[in-house]
Amino acid sequence: MPEDPRWIVGLDIGGTNMVVGLVPFAGGEPLGVRKLLTLPEAGGEEVIRRAVEAAEESMEEVFRTEGGTRDQVAGIGIGAPGPLNRETGVLVEAPNLGWRDFPLRSLVSGGVRLPAAVDNDANCATYGEYWMGAGRGSATLVGLTLGTGIGGGFVVNGEIHHGASDAAGEFGHITIDSTGRKCKCGNYGCLEAYASGPNIAARAVEGIEAGVESVLVELVDGDLKKITAATVYEGVILGDPYAHEVMKETAKFLGVGVANLINALNPDVIVIAGGVTRAGDHLFVPLRKEVRRRAFRSAVEACRIVPAALPETAGVIGAAGIFKKEVFGFI
Amino acid sequence: MPEDPRWIVGLDIGGTNMVVGLVPFAGGEPLGVRKLLTLPEAGGEEVIRRAVEAAEESMEEVFRTEGGTRDQVAGIGIGAPGPLNRETGVLVEAPNLGWRDFPLRSLVSGGVRLPAAVDNDANCATYGEYWMGAGRGSATLVGLTLGTGIGGGFVVNGEIHHGASDAAGEFGHITIDSTGRKCKCGNYGCLEAYASGPNIAARAVEGIEAGVESVLVELVDGDLKKITAATVYEGVILGDPYAHEVMKETAKFLGVGVANLINALNPDVIVIAGGVTRAGDHLFVPLRKEVRRRAFRSAVEACRIVPAALPETAGVIGAAGIFKKEVFGFI
Repeated sequence: MPEDPRWIVGLDIGGTNMVVGLVPFAGGEPLGVRKLLTLPEAGGEEVIRRAVEAAEESMEEVFRTEGGTRDQVAGIGIGAPGPLNRETGVLVEAPNLGWRDFPLRSLVSGGVRLPAAVDNDANCATYGEYWMGAGRGSATLVGLTLGTGIGGGFVVNGEIHHGASDAAGEFGHITIDSTGRKCKCGNYGCLEAYASGPNIAARAVEGIEAGVESVLVELVDGDLKKITAATVYEGVILGDPYAHEVMKETAKFLGVGVANLINALNPDVIVIAGGVTRAGDHLFVPLRKEVRRRAFRSAVEACRIVPAALPETAGVIGAAGIFKKEVFGFI
Repeated sequence: MPEDPRWIVGLDIGGTNMVVGLVPFAGGEPLGVRKLLTLPEAGGEEVIRRAVEAAEESMEEVFRTEGGTRDQVAGIGIGAPGPLNRETGVLVEAPNLGWRDFPLRSLVSGGVRLPAAVDNDANCATYGEYWMGAGRGSATLVGLTLGTGIGGGFVVNGEIHHGASDAAGEFGHITIDSTGRKCKCGNYGCLEAYASGPNIAARAVEGIEAGVESVLVELVDGDLKKITAATVYEGVILGDPYAHEVMKETAKFLGVGVANLINALNPDVIVIAGGVTRAGDHLFVPLRKEVRRRAFRSAVEACRIVPAALPETAGVIGAAGIFKKEVFGFI
């Protein structure tokens, strides 16, 4: 371990893309950032080989531009879809990557010849926003990432709350309607079954199939299978009343989940990340209204509900932060 | 502050009863326990006068039987219905007591001439179970108390999680059905609207009014207004099929709430307290089944769901524990 570390490598492995960069030890935007396709179908070892290569390139670029040597890199933090075993560094199962019992930490650590720490991607994104983004200085922070699924993270006393089996923060699988929509987790009425990207799209399609007229149909040339959450967002921007309605309903469902988290955890910040937050006030105004309707006033008043400040790099920064916290005991 | 403290006074103020006793500094069952009616309609100051009197009697009895002096009492922990401001020691509002902006801590502290700490009753009960009851040794503990309302508490890293405005742990007001039963908090579909004592009774009455036959009617001599959760429990013991059904439904609703807490917080123990837990396996077997159906397997497997071990004294022990943690930094 360097005596006077200047950087920590952050590696964020997603189902589609990987991002890697050097995060300043004291915190800040990552330098020498590389973004590359994950291509998980090539197999885990090949993905890691390419990730290690990108990390090496990232380090070389930073040493060249900033001065410095490998001795000043404290280690590498790795974020990946869970569940992970943080103690052994093994990725237990990642349906989006098709990996099982994959020795993620040892392969990366061996490849870059640096100490490493792993955590799940939603925790890393949350921790990045806590350390350097929209949640700076907060005491109790909840992170929600709306994507293909809904991931979550919970920071209390400066640390990610991992729980008894590294499974905490599955806020997408809080039931908001016990007899509601079937979720791919097998349960009924999970928040994710209403407000994930694919489920926003599915709800939009259901209305169109039931006869509602909307610009969404033209946007996909009549092929309803092509409707995504991004299409709904486009419809909102174009002023389509039905797209507005779908977005408002999304905000209401999300409001139930956020109100639950506020009543349970009384956070001072809730950071919401993911493509759908591009809708801005079209999402946040009705969301905050629904939360006020549902959660206790003193808890609502104590909580800022804000979009993520680091949509591209929170995962990299957070992975580095989690390494730092685990190894140094502070960030 | 005594150099070698032997006891902490615990005072648990409820809507109906108050309990006070001396908790050994190292933890254990309280000694010299006094239980008395709260009689809140006499006004806050009169209630506190009687509570202080009971605390003095409790101390005298313990000194007489165990030996010891007031110098060996470190202070007093006070649990009361919230919301409370822990910093100022003021009880902001307690609808069950009819008090508002009541300087609870200073009145008690002045009365018994001891340093004091306050917290809400559900947090105290949870902390008592964590310190000396069913949650001993746990790392992440969730407490649920089913009574007139549903209170909750959450212990992480040995401390009650209070949140940004001392409002965390309102697990009774997690929405489990966003278009469901109206809750007295104003929201729809809160767990409390299904599984609190009065709501268990209300659901039972609804079925009878709709024509279901049940022994519950005889148990209250035909006066349905007299049906309580305890009547439902009696019906279960008598083998009444409808009472069984109501209990099983209660377990299912509770299972949704418990599954939400497991997916969000991944605790190693959930302790459930309150009169309805007397139903034992009639409640816990269908409850655990519903939880397995709804929550992630690794999180369910990591979590024990157990009845409270200290139904009478958790509040007193926990109030003392919270004082100790606040003043000494450990329990």
